[in-house]
Amino acid sequence: MRPILVLNGPNLNLLGQREPEIYGSDTLADVERLCANSAAAHGLTVVTFQSNHEGAIVDRIQAARGDASAILINPGAYSHTSVAILDALGAFAGPVVEVHISNIHRREPFRHHSYVSSRADAVIAGAGVQGYGFGIDRIATLLGH
Amino acid sequence: MRPILVLNGPNLNLLGQREPEIYGSDTLADVERLCANSAAAHGLTVVTFQSNHEGAIVDRIQAARGDASAILINPGAYSHTSVAILDALGAFAGPVVEVHISNIHRREPFRHHSYVSSRADAVIAGAGVQGYGFGIDRIATLLGH
Amino acid sequence: MRPILVLNGPNLNLLGQREPEIYGSDTLADVERLCANSAAAHGLTVVTFQSNHEGAIVDRIQAARGDASAILINPGAYSHTSVAILDALGAFAGPVVEVHISNIHRREPFRHHSYVSSRADAVIAGAGVQGYGFGIDRIATLLGH
Amino acid sequence: MRPILVLNGPNLNLLGQREPEIYGSDTLADVERLCANSAAAHGLTVVTFQSNHEGAIVDRIQAARGDASAILINPGAYSHTSVAILDALGAFAGPVVEVHISNIHRREPFRHHSYVSSRADAVIAGAGVQGYGFGIDRIATLLGH
Amino acid sequence: MRPILVLNGPNLNLLGQREPEIYGSDTLADVERLCANSAAAHGLTVVTFQSNHEGAIVDRIQAARGDASAILINPGAYSHTSVAILDALGAFAGPVVEVHISNIHRREPFRHHSYVSSRADAVIAGAGVQGYGFGIDRIATLLGH
Amino acid sequence: MRPILVLNGPNLNLLGQREPEIYGSDTLADVERLCANSAAAHGLTVVTFQSNHEGAIVDRIQAARGDASAILINPGAYSHTSVAILDALGAFAGPVVEVHISNIHRREPFRHHSYVSSRADAVIAGAGVQGYGFGIDRIATLLGH
Amino acid sequence: MRPILVLNGPNLNLLGQREPEIYGSDTLADVERLCANSAAAHGLTVVTFQSNHEGAIVDRIQAARGDASAILINPGAYSHTSVAILDALGAFAGPVVEVHISNIHRREPFRHHSYVSSRADAVIAGAGVQGYGFGIDRIATLLGH
Amino acid sequence: MRPILVLNGPNLNLLGQREPEIYGSDTLADVERLCANSAAAHGLTVVTFQSNHEGAIVDRIQAARGDASAILINPGAYSHTSVAILDALGAFAGPVVEVHISNIHRREPFRHHSYVSSRADAVIAGAGVQGYGFGIDRIATLLGH
Amino acid sequence: MRPILVLNGPNLNLLGQREPEIYGSDTLADVERLCANSAAAHGLTVVTFQSNHEGAIVDRIQAARGDASAILINPGAYSHTSVAILDALGAFAGPVVEVHISNIHRREPFRHHSYVSSRADAVIAGAGVQGYGFGIDRIATLLGH
Amino acid sequence: MRPILVLNGPNLNLLGQREPEIYGSDTLADVERLCANSAAAHGLTVVTFQSNHEGAIVDRIQAARGDASAILINPGAYSHTSVAILDALGAFAGPVVEVHISNIHRREPFRHHSYVSSRADAVIAGAGVQGYGFGIDRIATLLGH
Amino acid sequence: MRPILVLNGPNLNLLGQREPEIYGSDTLADVERLCANSAAAHGLTVVTFQSNHEGAIVDRIQAARGDASAILINPGAYSHTSVAILDALGAFAGPVVEVHISNIHRREPFRHHSYVSSRADAVIAGAGVQGYGFGIDRIATLLGH
Amino acid sequence: MRPILVLNGPNLNLLGQREPEIYGSDTLADVERLCANSAAAHGLTVVTFQSNHEGAIVDRIQAARGDASAILINPGAYSHTSVAILDALGAFAGPVVEVHISNIHRREPFRHHSYVSSRADAVIAGAGVQGYGFGIDRIATLLGH
Repeated sequence: MRPILVLNGPNLNLLGQREPEIYGSDTLADVERLCANSAAAHGLTVVTFQSNHEGAIVDRIQAARGDASAILINPGAYSHTSVAILDALGAFAGPVVEVHISNIHRREPFRHHSYVSSRADAVIAGAGVQGYGFGIDRIATLLGH
Repeated sequence: MRPILVLNGPNLNLLGQREPEIYGSDTLADVERLCANSAAAHGLTVVTFQSNHEGAIVDRIQAARGDASAILINPGAYSHTSVAILDALGAFAGPVVEVHISNIHRREPFRHHSYVSSRADAVIAGAGVQGYGFGIDRIATLLGH
Repeated sequence: MRPILVLNGPNLNLLGQREPEIYGSDTLADVERLCANSAAAHGLTVVTFQSNHEGAIVDRIQAARGDASAILINPGAYSHTSVAILDALGAFAGPVVEVHISNIHRREPFRHHSYVSSRADAVIAGAGVQGYGFGIDRIATLLGH
Repeated sequence: MRPILVLNGPNLNLLGQREPEIYGSDTLADVERLCANSAAAHGLTVVTFQSNHEGAIVDRIQAARGDASAILINPGAYSHTSVAILDALGAFAGPVVEVHISNIHRREPFRHHSYVSSRADAVIAGAGVQGYGFGIDRIATLLGH
Repeated sequence: MRPILVLNGPNLNLLGQREPEIYGSDTLADVERLCANSAAAHGLTVVTFQSNHEGAIVDRIQAARGDASAILINPGAYSHTSVAILDALGAFAGPVVEVHISNIHRREPFRHHSYVSSRADAVIAGAGVQGYGFGIDRIATLLGH
Repeated sequence: MRPILVLNGPNLNLLGQREPEIYGSDTLADVERLCANSAAAHGLTVVTFQSNHEGAIVDRIQAARGDASAILINPGAYSHTSVAILDALGAFAGPVVEVHISNIHRREPFRHHSYVSSRADAVIAGAGVQGYGFGIDRIATLLGH
Repeated sequence: MRPILVLNGPNLNLLGQREPEIYGSDTLADVERLCANSAAAHGLTVVTFQSNHEGAIVDRIQAARGDASAILINPGAYSHTSVAILDALGAFAGPVVEVHISNIHRREPFRHHSYVSSRADAVIAGAGVQGYGFGIDRIATLLGH
Repeated sequence: MRPILVLNGPNLNLLGQREPEIYGSDTLADVERLCANSAAAHGLTVVTFQSNHEGAIVDRIQAARGDASAILINPGAYSHTSVAILDALGAFAGPVVEVHISNIHRREPFRHHSYVSSRADAVIAGAGVQGYGFGIDRIATLLGH
Repeated sequence: MRPILVLNGPNLNLLGQREPEIYGSDTLADVERLCANSAAAHGLTVVTFQSNHEGAIVDRIQAARGDASAILINPGAYSHTSVAILDALGAFAGPVVEVHISNIHRREPFRHHSYVSSRADAVIAGAGVQGYGFGIDRIATLLGH
Repeated sequence: MRPILVLNGPNLNLLGQREPEIYGSDTLADVERLCANSAAAHGLTVVTFQSNHEGAIVDRIQAARGDASAILINPGAYSHTSVAILDALGAFAGPVVEVHISNIHRREPFRHHSYVSSRADAVIAGAGVQGYGFGIDRIATLLGH
Repeated sequence: MRPILVLNGPNLNLLGQREPEIYGSDTLADVERLCANSAAAHGLTVVTFQSNHEGAIVDRIQAARGDASAILINPGAYSHTSVAILDALGAFAGPVVEVHISNIHRREPFRHHSYVSSRADAVIAGAGVQGYGFGIDRIATLLGH
Repeated sequence: MRPILVLNGPNLNLLGQREPEIYGSDTLADVERLCANSAAAHGLTVVTFQSNHEGAIVDRIQAARGDASAILINPGAYSHTSVAILDALGAFAGPVVEVHISNIHRREPFRHHSYVSSRADAVIAGAGVQGYGFGIDRIATLLGH
């Protein structure tokens, strides 16, 4: 079984440093480790990727067509503005789960809509970094693990 | 520790019978059992309630001020139309997690907005009945379990 | 053949007393008798229900899954605000016809849209209580009578 | 008593040929015969008219001021775009009933609004060609037959 | 002279307990006593009713057609979502005064519009529980006391 | 000097018969005579045209490129819906004055916008049939008479 | 017979100096003389007033209740923003005609709507200063001269 | 204790003369006397001001920073258009109560929104001139009288 | 093989005469000859039709069901306003290509939307009359030529 | 060289007293002195004007046509509501720079749009009173100093 | 003569692999070869570029100022979201033709608007990969070939 | 003291070459030199960065957390579309000033809104390249220089 791609979008490399009252104190490395552990509990593995570049995220999703079984994505700010990422995900056949650390429905109105949600199988928001674990669990279910 | 109130809104008593291609084949009893098991794994208990009546849901949430430590709610159709439920939840001090079995962002536009989301701590949509389990897990974390 | 459920929503119990220049002088009992007579002409029967409670209407529609062959509904004010009734009707497999006594398109803008219309097979507005008769006739046709 | 004008708008001459899954297999001639029969049952007669030309429909409605007692109209696509037809109907003193074969509320958003509805006494949608019969019946009632 | 119906909507049974910085520390019993005292000063009496159920409020307003001379209503959250309550009030012939304890125009945008206001004779918002007293005084004036 | 084309749109052939409280008791013939007299006072002549057909109005405006010096138009209901008439007027080089007998800004919202106004040199509304006279006077000025 | 009040709003004192390609080369004095001459032709007189102050215009309209038979108003920029002028005109019982020198429908969108138009008997736009003459003529007609 | 400033906006000097079916027959002097009497009952005094000029109202509110303890304001038409009055009130530290004689929510849509309401402590609409009395009473309460 | 119907809407008979800076100097005859030549290169023929009448265009499209293999249409102004043409095209089974000589996306906002585009197989705008040639080529491809 | 007109709108006379956390502690006199000093550094002078009256501001801008070389304006609340000031500035031929002390884009939505900005050469917001100095510097540049 | 830049945006590298029912089975290499062949028929050449990175596309368009005579662009998802690409094209002086393989007007509403269209000379949608050929032909015409 | 980061967005590398009537003739190098000189006058230094890549700008802003004391940013086209840049700036603790060379409020509507403005301390638009100097001056003030 190919690994799950855990993909984090712009500014998520600052996790733990930026606005901890919103995003908590865990770092991106912590989050990626959490995902790997959650996957391992299902007999699965992860590969991770983070970028601030919309194009790089599109590239990585395209590559996932050949090297990943599912995608767990926190698109960050690109949730709200990127049709290109939506289209790239549309070209990926496996399960897609979208995670937001904060509850985007309690923030500015422009954060309430995510293009990615119309492609995602599941959307989890506001569960903190624990939401990544839920996402891995859901993907495991969708993959029949 | 008081139990977690697992609250299901209108038409969720038909789970397993209504549009199984959207909602799956689990029944409400299955869902409530899943919640109880998830809670037990954290040393917690649940009480359950389902109603098709907005007012009855408001009453039950008010009662939860005295008999529950947290609320896991799938408000069903009232997500989109009930300010009264939002206000009742606003008067409840503990954690609130909102669950939708289907991904409401892939359905009709009037299902994309939920009043409850502006009060909920976390929102989980599209993870099927597994989303209830995630909700219990998140509540356990928020309760320090 | 199971009977047709004739379902009237909020304030329709006041028919004949409230704003007769809009709703006419027939009472709810008159309307229900009219429906029974129309149905009898097709060899069909009716059961009737009226409530001011959205939840009670949802309950009754759910019950119709087991005890009615079709639904003739005048959702009254809930036409414009209830997704819960729409969803309950969505879980009912038989014909659904929506009736409004007055022509809702000539009234306040918020009365021009009905959630129920997106589920109904036919919509009849402004034909007075005669519209109920048309609704029964249409249901008879849809039931093959 | 002058006859009832049965007026069909653009593309309704294709009835029975166009999208039968939406409009059924009856032809325009069938519909007009149905109307004549329904009228005869009330001791009334009909004259019929169909045109794809908005102006011709306006002309015909104006003529109805002198030769018809009521109008049964299916404005087709002009429902959604013609103020001129609305105005012509506004200059006609007798009953006006609007019929749509399909339930326009279940189709594209631009079909949900009809200018004619703000003038019509009654509006019937989604009852198939049977709706024409209901319309004739309603007109008979309004004419005191 | 029949009594004035003092009607409080959803969550107002929690007055004094919920968000006292918005709603103050008076309880519903205090408010109802205040109304009775204000009415007595005009030689009038009150009956009181509170419910979290939209349908129950509709029922009670309908009953007021036979047992009350006027209605003082704080529709709470149903102000913003209930056409059914608006219609029930529309079938009541006496004076109607709407009261909101907080100034709804300083809160979330969805609280700025009240269906009830289009039926009410007077609307008082932001005067705290004292607004109920003003409402009783206004009703007394409208009743000629 | 070529004559002024006085062009009246749909339903204006009914002037004097339709809704006299809005449109007055003058007939179309009266209006056309008024225009001829007003033009004569400036040493000008008129040709007149009325049609209920959008296409016929477009045809006539196109012909005016060869046989008229200016256009006085009351587009009636087509004011609000016809881009084709706007385009035809755009291809006419002489002065264009738009007249409405009633004050369209006091009527339904869909009558507040006229496509023709974005092409017209002047717009006169609510001056009754006298507005036609003003229009001829204005055209005379624009033609240098 | 009291005189007609000719009332010009903000910046119209600059007529002939400001943007002559839009407003022409006539000055305010020219316009007021034109009005006086037009009125004299009907055996009527005018009084004139211009102000850049919304409040002063309101004051003057109020005074017109006692000293003028009709109002010819070019509200200038206040057309688009002043409810106070609308209300003052609402308290004036005689004819009101609104004039705009330029065709406001060909300018920025915020100039397309005028509060005053919902009170005016007639609205004339784009006829240059000649429009004032038309306005006086219309007022003469409305006054029965 | 400084007096309460009772401030009336544009056209309110016409009270009792303008549209008495909306505003009643009391004059501004009556209203100001009513306020003085109400204040006296609380051991308070009033100063009064009325103007049709937005700027003059802003000036007077600014002066109130030095000579008034609270403001009772009926902003009239400026409710709907004046940010300047809102800002002036924002610079005043004492209680502010907004009064409208008519129920603005039953009138044209542009009267439903008041800039002042977002600053006011309480808003009273539709209680006739009695609303001024309620406003004084509320201010007395807010001032601790 | 039946010919391709080349259908031009309102005002396109003025091609070469109207606004040549937008539409170029080719006439309608030139355009139709271009289409015939392009078709001939694919072994196909064309029939041509132009009308300023919406109804005539609907009639012609209906006739095409029996006499044409495909439709190349420049709906002109009716692009933006005609549901009737959309519906007629909906009843035509062959390929439909929409052409606009100018780039409608660089013009007034009301020209940016075309009802026809939701039915067309391809849409070509701004390629001048050459766009007709592209349309014929595309149709040839769709017809398998 | 004529002086620069430094024009401050409503409530700016309260600078230093009103909401110092937003507007700072400098007074209007301080601001005007700052402007004079900045101008002097470029060999320029200023005249100053402040008013709470929209009409007075229009008057002053008109006068600037004869006595000022440029205008530095902080329109305050009138930024958002005054077309009259926009028009007056449109009649002024010299440079216009708009200044806001606070960053209006971080405040209520109705403060995000300024009519004046569509006329201004430059717009400076959120730079505190220092923004006035920048405005004078920019005007000096535009005047070639 | 410099070559034509054929520029494909995000996800178009997947052509032939992604959603072939929408985009067909040709690959990007096929498309680029088609363009080269079309250009050769006009005595022209092409250079090609594809990227998933908005910034890289901007860079390439800027470079085209020095190395290309025209641009044929399929902006893919960036059509709908990129002002930066619009601006880069605005700085390019030669012909620009926009191509979409599918008919974007038949897809989700957010795909109906393209920023690039307001800069493009021509827009071709829904003609499949053949649209690229049409684009090259149009560019050849615009270049005078 | 760390240097000020002077950050220019997409297409600003073309300054002096692109649309000089809008942007002037200074090059990016000129602008950066101007900034350095302005900073030097305050005893400060600058580092500069320009990119057409949204992701690269996000990266650079993140790096500024460790190597810059303040940010002067002209986000160019990304002002209107990038939430990612807004979020990166939200994670930077020092002063942020936004500069636009042209007055964006006089251009297309989609340029009137900037996401960055909701984070910026000050916004300067339309002051040409001089605006950069003002921005440096403001930053110096905010840094206490």
